[in-house]
Amino acid sequence: MGMETSPFLDSVNQKILSIIKDNSSPFLQEVIADHFSHPGKMLRPQLAHGIGQSLSVPEHLLVSWAAACEIFHNATLIHDDLQDGDEYRRGHPTTWKKYGAAQAINAGDLLLMCGQQIIYNSDLSADKQIQLAALFSKMGCKIVNGQTLEFSVKDLSDLPNIEKNYIECIGLKTAALFADLAVGVALLANKDTNFQNKIHHIFDLLGKIFQIQDDILDLYGDKGRGQKGCDLQEGKMSFLVVTHLKHHPLDLHIIKPILVKPRDATTFQDIENIENLFQQKQTLEKSLTEMNTMISTIRNDIWLKENVALYKYTNELLTKLLKPIQFLFKIS
Amino acid sequence: MGMETSPFLDSVNQKILSIIKDNSSPFLQEVIADHFSHPGKMLRPQLAHGIGQSLSVPEHLLVSWAAACEIFHNATLIHDDLQDGDEYRRGHPTTWKKYGAAQAINAGDLLLMCGQQIIYNSDLSADKQIQLAALFSKMGCKIVNGQTLEFSVKDLSDLPNIEKNYIECIGLKTAALFADLAVGVALLANKDTNFQNKIHHIFDLLGKIFQIQDDILDLYGDKGRGQKGCDLQEGKMSFLVVTHLKHHPLDLHIIKPILVKPRDATTFQDIENIENLFQQKQTLEKSLTEMNTMISTIRNDIWLKENVALYKYTNELLTKLLKPIQFLFKIS
Repeated sequence: MGMETSPFLDSVNQKILSIIKDNSSPFLQEVIADHFSHPGKMLRPQLAHGIGQSLSVPEHLLVSWAAACEIFHNATLIHDDLQDGDEYRRGHPTTWKKYGAAQAINAGDLLLMCGQQIIYNSDLSADKQIQLAALFSKMGCKIVNGQTLEFSVKDLSDLPNIEKNYIECIGLKTAALFADLAVGVALLANKDTNFQNKIHHIFDLLGKIFQIQDDILDLYGDKGRGQKGCDLQEGKMSFLVVTHLKHHPLDLHIIKPILVKPRDATTFQDIENIENLFQQKQTLEKSLTEMNTMISTIRNDIWLKENVALYKYTNELLTKLLKPIQFLFKIS
Repeated sequence: MGMETSPFLDSVNQKILSIIKDNSSPFLQEVIADHFSHPGKMLRPQLAHGIGQSLSVPEHLLVSWAAACEIFHNATLIHDDLQDGDEYRRGHPTTWKKYGAAQAINAGDLLLMCGQQIIYNSDLSADKQIQLAALFSKMGCKIVNGQTLEFSVKDLSDLPNIEKNYIECIGLKTAALFADLAVGVALLANKDTNFQNKIHHIFDLLGKIFQIQDDILDLYGDKGRGQKGCDLQEGKMSFLVVTHLKHHPLDLHIIKPILVKPRDATTFQDIENIENLFQQKQTLEKSLTEMNTMISTIRNDIWLKENVALYKYTNELLTKLLKPIQFLFKIS
């Protein structure tokens, strides 16, 4: 991913800033501009661009869809940070930390409400605008449901279904924005429902792989948050915990007390205890094996192979997404 | 408004519940259904119906627009209650109080994202759907900006502009949902831009009158919250405070300390002190006089008089909206 910039990402950014300006009072504009002053990798616009290129969609048609998805994504980040009590994002204080909870709710709400205007202001046909806007709304609802589910997954009360519930949760919270974003690009490429379903399947898997990679990175890599095991500290459910508890449900009595502890009460020793437990029982290796199965499903998908340009892009994307944890595959 | 029900309001309710069901996990559905189990007066759907009838719009065309506006309104109520720390609404615990802040954010977010689907699922033409959805999005942004502005109005730092800022704030936070709702109905009635601007002006005034009535009711009527002066207790800006400070800016040193006090620290004596201050300096009378000017503007509007059915409905509506404080006009 790196810190790529491109004329396409610049256009997306301009579109986002302009719709915010059109819809905000000076104060709210300041709050939101502050958040966007650290735009991150803009992974989702990059996805829209990559998929769009492989489906021969003209760039200018992709800008609106990419901008709408990115603006929605940032709305959820602002609300998530408040819900999770996260004080830093992209190395800077989060919106609620800087402007208070009430204004963080407002900033997120504004972004939730204005994103769709980018679709209506585009030069797409009326039917296409409605299809995209309806998809956008449904995608948004899925992600909110994923956020809701996360809170019930992390209380660890339904151990027998923990993997199923976790996968459902990341399918909604993370992968919906990959899968439905891809469906939107397929719509722009005038692809039929069958194609839309197939690309949804592939990018749903990719989104889940991305989230699992992110979970693993939290303990075994550097996420730039200055400290490893943040997810464990915050009591977030991660694929490592899920995989471990699936194979060793009796370890719940060791893991649960650490996860449910308030963030500030979690010690380095707690994190190390979990790390040792994972090492003893080869949890990382098991997790990587499961990831490999998902990766193979994509790389061997017959439909995808037939769509040569999309197959090529998807493989490049997989390599990019997995780069931060690639060294772990080599070790294990 | 009373507790009117009607086949129209039933249809609106069904449409709302069905779109929530289509877009929510069982848990989130429960959270939102709990909020909607005390639906309030459904004033905004009533407005859509009343305006629609006076513009001869078929009822079935109005249901979607009324439902979308009502669902949006309830999203803002759920978030507002959290932002303001209100523990009761319509006599029942608020969503954040019952399910926690994180799930209240999620419930509001879901409602913000799914309302527009009601428009896409309607049998309106594609162009009409886009016009309404774009209006819906812009209206939503105005209301979020009003909510943002409220926090800066209530800190009382800009005394010379207090009336201007307050009117701007209620124009966005309350009146936008009257004015743009009316514009939406005008769109459904195939009215031109000039008509839309005129009806916007009238219903913007009506929305402001409604809010001012609500402000006055807080101290001089019964809002069903079991106690008078709730707004003062919560430090909310009200038309009474604004009017008083406009005429007697030096009283800031009496009023401000009471408004900025934490809710629980505000005493009955505090509320009574403000009430006495208002009585000494005839603040209620001055407020009612200003309201009367706004009311006359509507009742004497030449364009409105020419639209006989709309004029008749608007006058009935004014009478209804002012009913809770009618006795004050008679006394003063």
